[in-house]
Amino acid sequence: MSQASPASLTAAQIAEATGGRLVGDGETVLSGIAPLDRAERDELSFLASLKYAPLLAATGAGAILVSPDLAEMPGEVRARIVVAKPHEAMLALIPHFYRPVPRTPGVHAAAVVGPEAVLGRDVCIEAGAVIGARAQIGDRCWIGANTVVGEGVRIGDDGQLYPQVTVYPHCELGKRVTLHAGVRIGSDGFGYVSRKVDGRFVHEKIPHVGRAIVGDDVEIGANCCIDRGSVDDTVIGAGTKLDNLVHIGHNVRIGRLCLVLAQVGVAGSARVEDGAVLAGQVGVSGHLTIGAGAKVGAQAGVISDVPAGESWSGYPARPHKESLRASAALFKLAGMLKKIERLLDKADA
Amino acid sequence: MSQASPASLTAAQIAEATGGRLVGDGETVLSGIAPLDRAERDELSFLASLKYAPLLAATGAGAILVSPDLAEMPGEVRARIVVAKPHEAMLALIPHFYRPVPRTPGVHAAAVVGPEAVLGRDVCIEAGAVIGARAQIGDRCWIGANTVVGEGVRIGDDGQLYPQVTVYPHCELGKRVTLHAGVRIGSDGFGYVSRKVDGRFVHEKIPHVGRAIVGDDVEIGANCCIDRGSVDDTVIGAGTKLDNLVHIGHNVRIGRLCLVLAQVGVAGSARVEDGAVLAGQVGVSGHLTIGAGAKVGAQAGVISDVPAGESWSGYPARPHKESLRASAALFKLAGMLKKIERLLDKADA
Amino acid sequence: MSQASPASLTAAQIAEATGGRLVGDGETVLSGIAPLDRAERDELSFLASLKYAPLLAATGAGAILVSPDLAEMPGEVRARIVVAKPHEAMLALIPHFYRPVPRTPGVHAAAVVGPEAVLGRDVCIEAGAVIGARAQIGDRCWIGANTVVGEGVRIGDDGQLYPQVTVYPHCELGKRVTLHAGVRIGSDGFGYVSRKVDGRFVHEKIPHVGRAIVGDDVEIGANCCIDRGSVDDTVIGAGTKLDNLVHIGHNVRIGRLCLVLAQVGVAGSARVEDGAVLAGQVGVSGHLTIGAGAKVGAQAGVISDVPAGESWSGYPARPHKESLRASAALFKLAGMLKKIERLLDKADA
Repeated sequence: MSQASPASLTAAQIAEATGGRLVGDGETVLSGIAPLDRAERDELSFLASLKYAPLLAATGAGAILVSPDLAEMPGEVRARIVVAKPHEAMLALIPHFYRPVPRTPGVHAAAVVGPEAVLGRDVCIEAGAVIGARAQIGDRCWIGANTVVGEGVRIGDDGQLYPQVTVYPHCELGKRVTLHAGVRIGSDGFGYVSRKVDGRFVHEKIPHVGRAIVGDDVEIGANCCIDRGSVDDTVIGAGTKLDNLVHIGHNVRIGRLCLVLAQVGVAGSARVEDGAVLAGQVGVSGHLTIGAGAKVGAQAGVISDVPAGESWSGYPARPHKESLRASAALFKLAGMLKKIERLLDKADA
Repeated sequence: MSQASPASLTAAQIAEATGGRLVGDGETVLSGIAPLDRAERDELSFLASLKYAPLLAATGAGAILVSPDLAEMPGEVRARIVVAKPHEAMLALIPHFYRPVPRTPGVHAAAVVGPEAVLGRDVCIEAGAVIGARAQIGDRCWIGANTVVGEGVRIGDDGQLYPQVTVYPHCELGKRVTLHAGVRIGSDGFGYVSRKVDGRFVHEKIPHVGRAIVGDDVEIGANCCIDRGSVDDTVIGAGTKLDNLVHIGHNVRIGRLCLVLAQVGVAGSARVEDGAVLAGQVGVSGHLTIGAGAKVGAQAGVISDVPAGESWSGYPARPHKESLRASAALFKLAGMLKKIERLLDKADA
Repeated sequence: MSQASPASLTAAQIAEATGGRLVGDGETVLSGIAPLDRAERDELSFLASLKYAPLLAATGAGAILVSPDLAEMPGEVRARIVVAKPHEAMLALIPHFYRPVPRTPGVHAAAVVGPEAVLGRDVCIEAGAVIGARAQIGDRCWIGANTVVGEGVRIGDDGQLYPQVTVYPHCELGKRVTLHAGVRIGSDGFGYVSRKVDGRFVHEKIPHVGRAIVGDDVEIGANCCIDRGSVDDTVIGAGTKLDNLVHIGHNVRIGRLCLVLAQVGVAGSARVEDGAVLAGQVGVSGHLTIGAGAKVGAQAGVISDVPAGESWSGYPARPHKESLRASAALFKLAGMLKKIERLLDKADA
């Protein structure tokens, strides 16, 4: 989250900063960014898709970043900056207009820091945060309000823990890790031995003595749950990003630079290799491997290994082309059902 | 949540209050409401479905609200009140028997209120709550224990924030908004530009400078996550209700009076228009539109626009009747598979 | 969560404790447990599946627990203990090597305990925890940091509430209940009457005056949500285990010794009878019954009752064998589609 700063730029300055071609009034002053339908005359907007071109005609924006193919679309903006990739150009400009919320270093009087905890330089620990004994918090970390960091946890430099995160004891976070509100790192996995004890059938808990280890540059969305390992560790590789409400079971290994979208569930001991992408609500069964660079479509249910580099979808998940073909065939066959039945009746007769 | 009050009503008073027809002893005194199988002699129960009629024979309830078609079902209750809609009648009676948990106005000594925050009249801020700088809290709001309200947040009158909610900085809640425990409003969306930076491939974070805006009379279930917008805002329309564990991506617009059931996920920039209903575990892909009044069935995976007023289901989601037909056809065709194969063999021969 | 203790055992002692057959050096000293690929020379590992046998050749473990069929697999460990069930043997050994994190009895100075709350013997209430008025906390309970226990809640002996749990007012937990971080017990269910009020269509909230009741020996995973009943209660039976991010709607009854995996959703008023197993991401529609001992496969969408003891899967859920047959048939039929179309054309002609 960022907030508006007083900085402003002219359209000419924006053209120069983005390497774009200026059309119109280069003196137009912009002090923020907004979508076409909400932008005001001191705001910069952007147009990169024909779908949104009708909004340009009615926009109040002072200037737009626009892709070459849409540069001539009708609209009364004072300045247009034509760039190959308006989205990336906008991304580069955001830090000019907005600055991150400042985190004042220090430990709030209403925070609790346990014995022998080690705090790095310029750490900010907000009200209500609870840091366990012997935890180690790296330089410039921000521990948000009411977040709980367990005993012996280690957090690398520049960690950002939003409010109300829980890191269970002895887990480890790398450098530049961002955990959004409500993330749980290191909860016990779902592991029981179902058997009779003293003549009574019970689900007997397997103690979880492994850790959860989160690599450098990982960002984890709100209310995600990453279980600790039972004996092994659960590992999230460097540079990987998780969306909201994701479940990662015990002993799972997620590789580097993966993208895991909202509400995905990965069951215990599965492997997701480097660069794989799991779309929203995907489920992966236990002990499987999703190969490097594989892509799994939204809501797919994976019950067998997915080879590296392939795109799979559906339930049970299969190569995406097969799933599409099956799905299309089904609707055709449903339409032919009566004819097929008649044909079979005739053949029987 | 409410709690029992000492109030009680006679069966005759209940008949009068609900416009019902009294059968039996009007002097029967009732002081609470309970289901047939748990009700005791001073409690009122209800019967509106034939499925539950057998419970009437064994109930200990003192009186029941009953629909006309079931009014004669056997059972030994002292009084029956015959009404067209027993559920709605019961709803009207609950406030007679139960009163809301009282919220004593004031700021608990263990709460933390930031500089320049503005608190309305009769606000109740519980222990461990943390209110950010410059936040504005409307009249009669209740901020539950350990809830965190970020810098610059605005909350309208009569807001109910249960314990352990997080509202990220600069988000806005309308009047009479209820957020259940663990709700996250305004977390960063899942937005990255994947590209080489200094020769290394990375998922580079897109700063999220939009807001999340929640309309009047919205209720949001436990542990839901509503992302803030990237540049645009994320908006939940007035009167809309969300069940538990729902994910709403960045820049999504949910209309007015929608019903979004548990574990639904709506991906970034999708539109859900007024009055639409998304059943449990539905997934909606990004940038789509669910038209006004449309109904999407449980677990459906929506990958194309849904026209207003239509009922869709299945994966990929299609009009409900088509999905039903396809599903039924599949099971029939599976049963005919051998015959079809034989027929094709013969045709080939 | 547990942590390493200074205890150690020899391979001979482990063989004796597990009833296993010792092969190799019985004097080998072990002081912890680790998987084959991470174990060091003072650690015990285990091998129970041919899939992981290649790791044995390269392991640094000092000793392994191994099943009889794999006892001769190549590898340079100093000692092997051959046991029928290496996993169960390991389970039995964990308490020798690891001890639970100690909970020092007492109420932290930064906790808040409401009026007339009753605390049992040796209760541990951590920093930031908030206990409501008239709550009753059993002997030896642990209330983790920043957890909120509502007014009038009753918790049996030996409860373990991890940090940031919320228990809404008047709910009840049995003995030896474990709630992981972020669990919500007793949130209002999703119940509205949609009707015109003063000429305006609204979703009018049904007050929820029932409770959520959690039985003895229940464990509930991180960020689960268990709604309270509307008038009836929501009940989780003794010995049942829930994985992370599960949703349980209002008035649901879950039986004894059920297993409910991650991200399952059970809609209002459904019954799940004793010993049933719901695999990951299953959805169960409202008012249905899943019979005792039934098993529902991952991602299944249950829209009709499931008979006791049966295995069901798919969407809509059907007996597992039927679902498998239909799924296999679909892919075959898709492959035959062109031939079928030609045959029908010929028949038409």
